[in-house]
Amino acid sequence: MGATGAVGAVMLQILSQRADIWGEIRLLASPRSAGRKLAVRGEEVEVTALTEDAFDGVDIAMFDVPDEVSAQWAPIAAARGVVVVDNSGAFRMDADVPLVVPEVNPHAVRIRPRGIVANPNCTTLSMIVALGALHAEFGLRELVVSSYQAVSGAGRAGVETLRSQLSLVAGTELGTTPGDVRRAVGEETGPFPEPVALNVVPWAGSLREDGWSSEEMKVRDESRKILGLPTLPVAVTCVRVPVITSHALTVHARFQGEVTVDGAREILATAPGVVLFDDPAAGEFPTPADVVGTDPTWVGRLRRALDDPTALELFVCGDNLRKGAALNTAQIAELVAAEVTGGAAARE
Amino acid sequence: MGATGAVGAVMLQILSQRADIWGEIRLLASPRSAGRKLAVRGEEVEVTALTEDAFDGVDIAMFDVPDEVSAQWAPIAAARGVVVVDNSGAFRMDADVPLVVPEVNPHAVRIRPRGIVANPNCTTLSMIVALGALHAEFGLRELVVSSYQAVSGAGRAGVETLRSQLSLVAGTELGTTPGDVRRAVGEETGPFPEPVALNVVPWAGSLREDGWSSEEMKVRDESRKILGLPTLPVAVTCVRVPVITSHALTVHARFQGEVTVDGAREILATAPGVVLFDDPAAGEFPTPADVVGTDPTWVGRLRRALDDPTALELFVCGDNLRKGAALNTAQIAELVAAEVTGGAAARE
Repeated sequence: MGATGAVGAVMLQILSQRADIWGEIRLLASPRSAGRKLAVRGEEVEVTALTEDAFDGVDIAMFDVPDEVSAQWAPIAAARGVVVVDNSGAFRMDADVPLVVPEVNPHAVRIRPRGIVANPNCTTLSMIVALGALHAEFGLRELVVSSYQAVSGAGRAGVETLRSQLSLVAGTELGTTPGDVRRAVGEETGPFPEPVALNVVPWAGSLREDGWSSEEMKVRDESRKILGLPTLPVAVTCVRVPVITSHALTVHARFQGEVTVDGAREILATAPGVVLFDDPAAGEFPTPADVVGTDPTWVGRLRRALDDPTALELFVCGDNLRKGAALNTAQIAELVAAEVTGGAAARE
Repeated sequence: MGATGAVGAVMLQILSQRADIWGEIRLLASPRSAGRKLAVRGEEVEVTALTEDAFDGVDIAMFDVPDEVSAQWAPIAAARGVVVVDNSGAFRMDADVPLVVPEVNPHAVRIRPRGIVANPNCTTLSMIVALGALHAEFGLRELVVSSYQAVSGAGRAGVETLRSQLSLVAGTELGTTPGDVRRAVGEETGPFPEPVALNVVPWAGSLREDGWSSEEMKVRDESRKILGLPTLPVAVTCVRVPVITSHALTVHARFQGEVTVDGAREILATAPGVVLFDDPAAGEFPTPADVVGTDPTWVGRLRRALDDPTALELFVCGDNLRKGAALNTAQIAELVAAEVTGGAAARE
């Protein structure tokens, strides 16, 4: 459901690339997209409009739609016996809906009284696999996080906005006088409150209490739930940057006791779903443009805090449309499928 | 000295805009730039080559040159009785060289046994005026900082590199497959270790011990020295972003006791050199493209940490060539001039 969106397009790739455990795959979307044909597993499949009957005979549904669409339709599908893996924010913090990252808390997927499993926000997902591995060994005590978020986190409109703004500013001398970029790109800034070309914008999502953005609250609340640390102090500032796809984050992580870089390297080098790419002397650290299109969480710039032997600094990078959305959703669906069919655990 | 560089060009503007307390202004540069004419205070001045005699009759010299040039020439000028205000990293951490931000520690300028006053690094300067004001009231206990640094921090070559890379990626579909940006821009990435267009690069400066970059060490060490807090815990990750001019930083600042947002707002709203621009409901927060070309440190996204009543979150933004370099250098020179001439304090 949501097959024609930015995440939907990546989901079709992922379903075509991973081990094919599926029987029929149905592509659903809003009525205006019905009739389009999209390729998945090497064949063309016609997109059908979302209706109650569209869920007949379905075991697992993967939803990537706005919160209000999920809020309405996930319970309808679940009432028909479908397990819904939902990538909206509608259910993530509900106590009776598990929020699952297969590398971190796979067993949570089994307890889903409402028939709904939630997929975390893309920003949380871009760091949580690496942090989960470190937490399992060292015990997290505090997180301070800053994001460098790609425009595709705001969907196709975000990508189109940056591309069109870049066409207007490339080849110019803009970026040197107050507001010159804003004047060049005009009032239409798409899903962003300010121009994002030649700029960074410290805002993502909607306004919550006391000046916090919804995106910042998601990173805090979801990290706590996934890690099973309901009182973990988490400070977050979310910033949009002119990158097409792949979120990056700086993380200051404080642990229960003293940590060593060697110990952390060993954990990250062997953690499933994590690639440690960290040799600044050789120019090695992850950047969004290098990791886009790949599955793992990339970690670089690993250092111990100079003034606190219990804290580590990291720069993490991950494809916000793959692990940050479609891939994790597919991994959850595979976990559910393995359980439903009684087969071996899907690969994590 | 260094009149023809990126910071030199801004210095000529600043000397032309601020109260003109100067007699003769001499423009010095390396021999290959000698003979060029540059405008300052509405008149054309010929650039002369750096020689010992060039300092004859000079009271104050402002240097913006590489570390090794400063290391060699600042003592030569000082030996001739010139007060050198130096924007390189050569002397900043020397115990007998004051490191001055006029809004924070103006009195430090008076004790300069070597005749040299150091100007802080642009990244430190982009946040320290706001933090100094908060520290004076609340008492800082810890900083966790992440930077979003503009390419002009790497000089004219940085700006040219981003502009030429943007011309290659604008109007394309790049940024969606691993390494496609790198292949498009080629091996020549200018002063940066990775492509900076459609990317963010978690590296600035040279490699220091244990994986830290020189830029990160500067932010930590200089902040401690300016604030007079030699053991302040400071964790920093420096990241380059595709912005022409104006550095931004996220700051998690922990204080001695409980703080309130209202109290912090009052301090920042009245602090000299600071503009509080913080009303997310009205879409108000600073961005680099809006503050470029302005003098103050802009502060937005002010929040109290949700899980720590002693900590504040801020997003700060400042023009790295103005307050981050030329403006602060000029302000220091004005402080020295006021003292030398026995006049009233230069405006801070």
